[in-house]
Amino acid sequence: MDVPEGFSPTFILVLNLLGTFVFGLSGGLAAVRARLDLVGVVVLAAVVGLAGGIARDVLIGAPPATFRDWRYLAAAAAAGAVCFFAGRVLERVERSVMFFDALGLGLFAVTGATKALRFGLGPVQAILLGAITGVGGGVLRDVMLREVPTVLREGLYAVPALIGATVLVVTQRAGGTSPVFPVLGALLCIAVRLVGVKYRINAPRPRDPTDRPGPG
Amino acid sequence: MDVPEGFSPTFILVLNLLGTFVFGLSGGLAAVRARLDLVGVVVLAAVVGLAGGIARDVLIGAPPATFRDWRYLAAAAAAGAVCFFAGRVLERVERSVMFFDALGLGLFAVTGATKALRFGLGPVQAILLGAITGVGGGVLRDVMLREVPTVLREGLYAVPALIGATVLVVTQRAGGTSPVFPVLGALLCIAVRLVGVKYRINAPRPRDPTDRPGPG
Amino acid sequence: MDVPEGFSPTFILVLNLLGTFVFGLSGGLAAVRARLDLVGVVVLAAVVGLAGGIARDVLIGAPPATFRDWRYLAAAAAAGAVCFFAGRVLERVERSVMFFDALGLGLFAVTGATKALRFGLGPVQAILLGAITGVGGGVLRDVMLREVPTVLREGLYAVPALIGATVLVVTQRAGGTSPVFPVLGALLCIAVRLVGVKYRINAPRPRDPTDRPGPG
Repeated sequence: MDVPEGFSPTFILVLNLLGTFVFGLSGGLAAVRARLDLVGVVVLAAVVGLAGGIARDVLIGAPPATFRDWRYLAAAAAAGAVCFFAGRVLERVERSVMFFDALGLGLFAVTGATKALRFGLGPVQAILLGAITGVGGGVLRDVMLREVPTVLREGLYAVPALIGATVLVVTQRAGGTSPVFPVLGALLCIAVRLVGVKYRINAPRPRDPTDRPGPG
Repeated sequence: MDVPEGFSPTFILVLNLLGTFVFGLSGGLAAVRARLDLVGVVVLAAVVGLAGGIARDVLIGAPPATFRDWRYLAAAAAAGAVCFFAGRVLERVERSVMFFDALGLGLFAVTGATKALRFGLGPVQAILLGAITGVGGGVLRDVMLREVPTVLREGLYAVPALIGATVLVVTQRAGGTSPVFPVLGALLCIAVRLVGVKYRINAPRPRDPTDRPGPG
Repeated sequence: MDVPEGFSPTFILVLNLLGTFVFGLSGGLAAVRARLDLVGVVVLAAVVGLAGGIARDVLIGAPPATFRDWRYLAAAAAAGAVCFFAGRVLERVERSVMFFDALGLGLFAVTGATKALRFGLGPVQAILLGAITGVGGGVLRDVMLREVPTVLREGLYAVPALIGATVLVVTQRAGGTSPVFPVLGALLCIAVRLVGVKYRINAPRPRDPTDRPGPG
């Protein structure tokens, strides 16, 4: 529809489908953990896998790709099926929800930023939109399971997404057309996220507000 | 705006307004049950009545009909008023929230799928979009009242919506232009949903994951 | 992009940026209260500051301004930073979250209605869209922090937003092009909201439904 700047569209599509699949795994496994039934597992896998891309397209005013290309649906549904049938195995992988979520975060941060640039957004906006694409699915997953979204609770969640998107935007602005750059951005995001989880690194907290009583 | 395939647009409009009204009843009654005040009742009725259609239009990239046609707003507001003034009577109907929700589910599943086909989406996408249109309002209602959405908790919620939308898409693809088909799809969806609720039928659950302790 | 009716676009932009900033303060302070870290504070400030405008643009089918104009992002980010570094001081202001929320409610109600009129919506739709613009950010803030949204819990929240938007729409329809009218609408909305909070005024509640037991 519009001329890509540099990357092969197929390459970006593959990253997007991969991101949809791993985010779907993260949603499906969270559903298995919450003891939802088969439909709940597939639905949550689909929601988490597809939400980031839908949010991205709606926010940049692009025709939503999700419902134009059956492969996104297939990737999300496949993730749901895998979680239902193999969830017990995947569950054994400690913190598996978090792990697949981190993979999706990195992949969607760079593909989201790429699409934003293609639709003519400025670099700062593209970075932010990349981060939103990465973060969106997880927010919905957490809200639907009645948890405070990870992006609010953990310092190293939005930050790695911003880092990954920044790598993409900076290198592409500098004329880089090699697929190395999106891969680099995604890997950097994933690495920072996993390190943050492992060592429980958080951003600084505001100082304790006066613990005043009252109706506030 | 675009040429309908078969059905009279008026007929689909009537189904849509009816769906908005019954979903509105479901939202308003849930608000009455949660002891919200008049404004809360009307707002939740409007949100639940309108959300599915808005989501549908945003997802297919159509200009949102809700804010272009005052009758949708009127239907949603009327539902809110009915719930406020007659909520006590409607409450007596056991499981009334669920009942009106089931009606809306069926109506929106077929109208959503119809609109998706008209906007050129493929059959699988149209079925999914019909289901999303049907499911959307209830998800918002549940999330705003801090419950895990029904679509995640109960097996026979997404499934009947998919069935209703499938009936519509298959018959329309086969050239059926009779208003019998959307009505059939909606009724089938409603019937499956109500049977599922009555007999507490659920999709199979994944086997119990190892109840391991840990920070997971 | 389109011809404004009457007001200087710069004036409306200033109101919008101000609204983004004060809503951002409300989100950021709520995050400080919930003991989130720096990233959580900035993210929630941004979400609350930007959500209303994004919802407005998506609902009227306008290209989302938020991601086209860096100043919105700057206003939201600035609010987050202020909350992190000065949150302790602002916290001392009793009910500060509510106060900044009221300011944003009034500002966004009138700018939302203005934009809806410019995009050709009817007066009733424009009033509703103004109210949605005002209410949107707070709903997300409450849902993400797992609270029932204020708009559902308190009678004088949606109502003042509707009043502010109505003032704007009526005066503009009557040919008023003076910047006095949006200011008047915003102030009226803010005043009604603050009076409602101070005296705990609520809309009437539905009569107590029969407290019947049962699986309902």
